[in-house]
Amino acid sequence: MTGEFDLIDRIRARVVARDDVRLGIGDDAAVLAVPAGLHLVVAVDTLNAGVHFPADTAPADIGWKALAVNLSDLAAMGAVPAWCTVSLSMPAADAPWVDAFLDGFDALARAHAVALVGGDTTRGPLSICVTVHGLVAPGRALRRSAACAGDDIWISGTPGDAAGALRQWRAGGAVEPALRERLDRPTPRLALGDALVGVAHAAIDVSDGLLADLGHVARASGLAAEIDLDDLPVSPALRAAFDADVRYRLQASGGDDYELCFTAPPSVADAVRDAARASATPVTRIGRMQAGAGVSVRLAGAPWAPQGAGWDHFAAAP
Amino acid sequence: MTGEFDLIDRIRARVVARDDVRLGIGDDAAVLAVPAGLHLVVAVDTLNAGVHFPADTAPADIGWKALAVNLSDLAAMGAVPAWCTVSLSMPAADAPWVDAFLDGFDALARAHAVALVGGDTTRGPLSICVTVHGLVAPGRALRRSAACAGDDIWISGTPGDAAGALRQWRAGGAVEPALRERLDRPTPRLALGDALVGVAHAAIDVSDGLLADLGHVARASGLAAEIDLDDLPVSPALRAAFDADVRYRLQASGGDDYELCFTAPPSVADAVRDAARASATPVTRIGRMQAGAGVSVRLAGAPWAPQGAGWDHFAAAP
Repeated sequence: MTGEFDLIDRIRARVVARDDVRLGIGDDAAVLAVPAGLHLVVAVDTLNAGVHFPADTAPADIGWKALAVNLSDLAAMGAVPAWCTVSLSMPAADAPWVDAFLDGFDALARAHAVALVGGDTTRGPLSICVTVHGLVAPGRALRRSAACAGDDIWISGTPGDAAGALRQWRAGGAVEPALRERLDRPTPRLALGDALVGVAHAAIDVSDGLLADLGHVARASGLAAEIDLDDLPVSPALRAAFDADVRYRLQASGGDDYELCFTAPPSVADAVRDAARASATPVTRIGRMQAGAGVSVRLAGAPWAPQGAGWDHFAAAP
Repeated sequence: MTGEFDLIDRIRARVVARDDVRLGIGDDAAVLAVPAGLHLVVAVDTLNAGVHFPADTAPADIGWKALAVNLSDLAAMGAVPAWCTVSLSMPAADAPWVDAFLDGFDALARAHAVALVGGDTTRGPLSICVTVHGLVAPGRALRRSAACAGDDIWISGTPGDAAGALRQWRAGGAVEPALRERLDRPTPRLALGDALVGVAHAAIDVSDGLLADLGHVARASGLAAEIDLDDLPVSPALRAAFDADVRYRLQASGGDDYELCFTAPPSVADAVRDAARASATPVTRIGRMQAGAGVSVRLAGAPWAPQGAGWDHFAAAP
């Protein structure tokens, strides 16, 4: 791409420094020193314009979110982040856009001491592919498959807020700022994930919607999950913005939350609350794993049947 | 994306097995055991449809090339590949396309025992972002900045062939199969790169064109590079297809070669030839590093002035 090397210089000037980066941006590849006795944890997620964020999203928010959704995957493993790469496709070299993108990306990278060690810039429709690398002690990663019958199911934060913002944005009216903030600037729950190592059994980050992602845990663990909609935490903004039926669907299936859904035996509930307090992250117990298969949802003591036709979350929209 | 999980299952079924993959595709992230005493080497490159490959490229060739251009970066570091991730954006879930893509990707992955450990599939214009991970002994990576005054400059293979195919394709006529093969199925020079560790000083893989990439080595090393066009190796197919003036430009600036350009002191020329023989990779000495800056090109003993206006290689074309 014309101007590619200017863009790379702009990016390089802002990178977080880490001693374990032996060779960073500027060669054919980065060289990294993985600490002895730790395993490497790797995740990748791509954001495409118009699919993973609304077209009017500010570049700084795109930068934040591109890193956040990846760090969220590390949080769900209980890994501590270390390095990342960014592959940025854009229609034309646009230095002001890249600077703004980096403002958001960099703010989150600095908060978690993540070093950007490589990447490329190419011409194409706007798309950002981020790969993150973290570290975890052998055998300590939180796996989707590790839930046990009798485990409590917990969720961090207040799922549904991001989907609420998206619904308002699609309707063309005003978008409640508190909801839009959760769509544009999701919080990777890294401190919580780290604190849950040795406490929680299974964990996943909620990107496709709580029911879908909890379904992955249930399937991988060979169990059933049962949650009660009344127990789902709800933000004041979401409660004010939608009637109960819509709100339940947003909370259960909205997606784009990047909260942690995890399971732990009832005997460690106090340790879970300690982990939440230590990481300053609200958590709520919402259900129970048990023998069987699938995810069942109850509301006011009865099976929940959502009104209306199927719920199309953002990623699946035509 | 609708059908995402089917696609992931298709991909997972074909993955190369490695003992050091502690957790592969199917969780929030992969968990990998990096051998003690080795450094991790990471590179990422994205291919976009119509930018990095012609629109009529077979899916199997796209799969091969998406991995090859990344493995080429590891080759240029002298690293041995281990793992990769793939982020695949496509307009709609297309299982036959993915199967064909995997045919090409997998053929190359198996040849080098590279395990696919994660990735995602998203809806968007066709784009493939691959991240590769390799291993190298501390302090042994081949860096762009390590060239010394007096070093010979070497090139593997026959640069210009891929650009020759692209030129014929753009002209709308027949494309010589031997050239098209070099465009669609570049050979990452991994065995050569590995054999050059401890022998060569600097190395780079030629993706943007020999002069541009040699310019990176010269700049990073604080030196000048001088090459002689008469010394550039030329394939019979390229010689037959173009007159000398066009051919020189293709060889010098065409790009998409994925050959290794490297420097080494004249005293180790025999060791370079041994490395080439051991890796069954042809290499040719094409110039010399010296004090100064920039890349100068000579032809028949005089400075070379390419005919016609600037050369627009594929990535920079409007």
